[in-house]
Amino acid sequence: MARLVLKFGGTSVADLDRIRNVAQHVKREVDAGNEVAVVVSAMAGSTNELVRLCREASPMHDAREYDTIVSSGEQVTSGLLAIVLQAMGIDARSWQGWQIALKTNDAHGSARIQSIECDLLRQRLSAGQVAVIAGFQGVSANNRITTLGRGGSDTSAVALAAAIGADRCDIYTDVDGVYTTDPRIVPKAKRLDRVSFEEMLELASLGAKVLQVRSVELAMVHNVPVFVRSSFDDPAADQVGAGNFPPGTLICDEDGIVEKQNVTGIAASKDEAQISLRNVPDQPGVAANVFVPLAEANINVDMIVQTISADGSTADITFTVPASDYDRAMEVLRSDTAGIGFQSIEGAQDVVKISIVGIGMRSHAGVAAGAFRALADRGINIRAITTSEIKISVLIDSAYTELAVRSLHSVYGLDDNE
Amino acid sequence: MARLVLKFGGTSVADLDRIRNVAQHVKREVDAGNEVAVVVSAMAGSTNELVRLCREASPMHDAREYDTIVSSGEQVTSGLLAIVLQAMGIDARSWQGWQIALKTNDAHGSARIQSIECDLLRQRLSAGQVAVIAGFQGVSANNRITTLGRGGSDTSAVALAAAIGADRCDIYTDVDGVYTTDPRIVPKAKRLDRVSFEEMLELASLGAKVLQVRSVELAMVHNVPVFVRSSFDDPAADQVGAGNFPPGTLICDEDGIVEKQNVTGIAASKDEAQISLRNVPDQPGVAANVFVPLAEANINVDMIVQTISADGSTADITFTVPASDYDRAMEVLRSDTAGIGFQSIEGAQDVVKISIVGIGMRSHAGVAAGAFRALADRGINIRAITTSEIKISVLIDSAYTELAVRSLHSVYGLDDNE
Repeated sequence: MARLVLKFGGTSVADLDRIRNVAQHVKREVDAGNEVAVVVSAMAGSTNELVRLCREASPMHDAREYDTIVSSGEQVTSGLLAIVLQAMGIDARSWQGWQIALKTNDAHGSARIQSIECDLLRQRLSAGQVAVIAGFQGVSANNRITTLGRGGSDTSAVALAAAIGADRCDIYTDVDGVYTTDPRIVPKAKRLDRVSFEEMLELASLGAKVLQVRSVELAMVHNVPVFVRSSFDDPAADQVGAGNFPPGTLICDEDGIVEKQNVTGIAASKDEAQISLRNVPDQPGVAANVFVPLAEANINVDMIVQTISADGSTADITFTVPASDYDRAMEVLRSDTAGIGFQSIEGAQDVVKISIVGIGMRSHAGVAAGAFRALADRGINIRAITTSEIKISVLIDSAYTELAVRSLHSVYGLDDNE
Repeated sequence: MARLVLKFGGTSVADLDRIRNVAQHVKREVDAGNEVAVVVSAMAGSTNELVRLCREASPMHDAREYDTIVSSGEQVTSGLLAIVLQAMGIDARSWQGWQIALKTNDAHGSARIQSIECDLLRQRLSAGQVAVIAGFQGVSANNRITTLGRGGSDTSAVALAAAIGADRCDIYTDVDGVYTTDPRIVPKAKRLDRVSFEEMLELASLGAKVLQVRSVELAMVHNVPVFVRSSFDDPAADQVGAGNFPPGTLICDEDGIVEKQNVTGIAASKDEAQISLRNVPDQPGVAANVFVPLAEANINVDMIVQTISADGSTADITFTVPASDYDRAMEVLRSDTAGIGFQSIEGAQDVVKISIVGIGMRSHAGVAAGAFRALADRGINIRAITTSEIKISVLIDSAYTELAVRSLHSVYGLDDNE
């Protein structure tokens, strides 16, 4: 017997047939004697429709009203799933954010969870009642409905799992797990059975798009194992048992991973742009001169590389920004050429960041060298490199994306040769 | 300056253009210096769609979940109207039932309002903020969302008007007021400028369908004047002033009606069925023997007429039930022929109840006689008659509905001859 949180996204509850399929997954876990809380998203398409209404009502709409409107989608799904479960003879009830109460700050539209007062919810779970929880939403100290931002249902699920002390949080989605890389680029990509929180954070933020980054952070902080699996599997066939998992990926503490691979996955992050400042005076404060104005303009800077000239008097600073912020970033910097003191500015928009991720690389020298050699062998020029303990990222021309990913995937032995 | 509640039904908020039109009505009242609370229904069609989803999820759905799902329609409209008002520079916010809090019993699907804790709402109104309230919904003592039943937004509006001490409750609908009779039957029907609560109760329950009966009862109990008007009027043109009303009907206390008409209106109620029990022993308890089993079967009995035979030993009992309950009522009675003791039972389904309503008839003899003569002159047979202080109802064959209504409308001088 375990206490579980199951989370189903919008495509998994897109219509009543799919909601019935979700109910079968829930039933399987209930029948196995587990306590089950289910977190649901809005039916696919309904959130977009509600967002459209808000925008049409006024482009500059009040985020509090936006949250009131948009959260209604999850309200509907939670009620429908409760009804379907009851019709199957399973005791169930829906919970809205304010009923739990899942308390957030008042940053409407992208609120952060502050506390979850789940005494009543826990009582009901202990009594065998399935809790069907509207994801994505909470309530502020002012008693207004808040939403956690796009993909916030993942965060709801993990936060609830932590609050009720769940043994695991199962994320049912439209893919059957986390892959070594994008299977559209590398058909031989393998599904990972297990991946550490740290690796998943690097992969998620680089575009794996299976889980919201915040939910992985939360899961890591509270050490909640997260199992990613497909909601379209046969609900009857695949009971998760002791060490017996259906197809999917378990995201867990490093200790839960027995065989640590040097490299777990390769991620490609498009939509990056590169900016290089040449001959910046190499003196204290110059980095602040560059990056403070960008931060003030709400532009996220990612890779930062600084090199110093031979005589040590000037430096070149290269960094990346989201492609959508490129023009704005260039403008911010050019408007203060004198203050920052650079001689020239260069930029490139057709670039891609390739990241090689693996907790094993901590203890293995030569992982980076292997990557550089593989890229060089194929004539791919590296524009910038950054490394962390478990990640090597290189910036290259986007035309080489597929070639680079495929080469690295193969070099690190990730290809599925079965 | 006045404190007003404005209520807009589903067709008045069917899309964003109509919601913008509603906002213009609100703006007019705000510009005139009034404190304004607005009660909105769901966008036309959305409630039906949500009800359909519930039914598809399970025909025997949990009423608590039904309420959670269906109430989301009003939630969306309240947020949208708040956004539109804000975009016009008007301070506004949405309120859900649980935020106010509008507390109800837990009769989900047709809950009754128990109390309205509107301190915060009143504060905001006094500070000049428009309150946009999701109609039709409340919250139970268990913190679950409840709904007040179809048409419940009228009840929400009147109850809120009473709770906040509003000077008037304006019901904006798709007709421009209450008419002397159904204009589809009598093209010469006139709109009534004023009608008393008591008359409106009789007219509403007989199918005038402008206002939910419960809301009229509430308005009468709390003496809240209710003004029924069209939401499709030009919002700019028709400011309600002292004694200066745009087209519409004011439903108010009898004291507010200067010229009391003998007859205010003629209502026809279809969907009635007649049942007659012949030669029932005329002894104490016999009426109970007939009507208790019907009440236990949840069948509403309306007109009841009892006549005693010449020798006083037996009685005939005639009454009406909703046509949809006719078969069930006949079955209930036939199953206990001996217990009730009637000799024979007769029924008729093609009947209609015509009601002549007017507070003036209290002090005027001969109103009933005039009706009977008018019907007799046209060869219309009266199957049953009941009277109250302000109403005469006759049951006739439904084939004569239009003829009877037109004749009576004319006899009582209600035709609009302009």
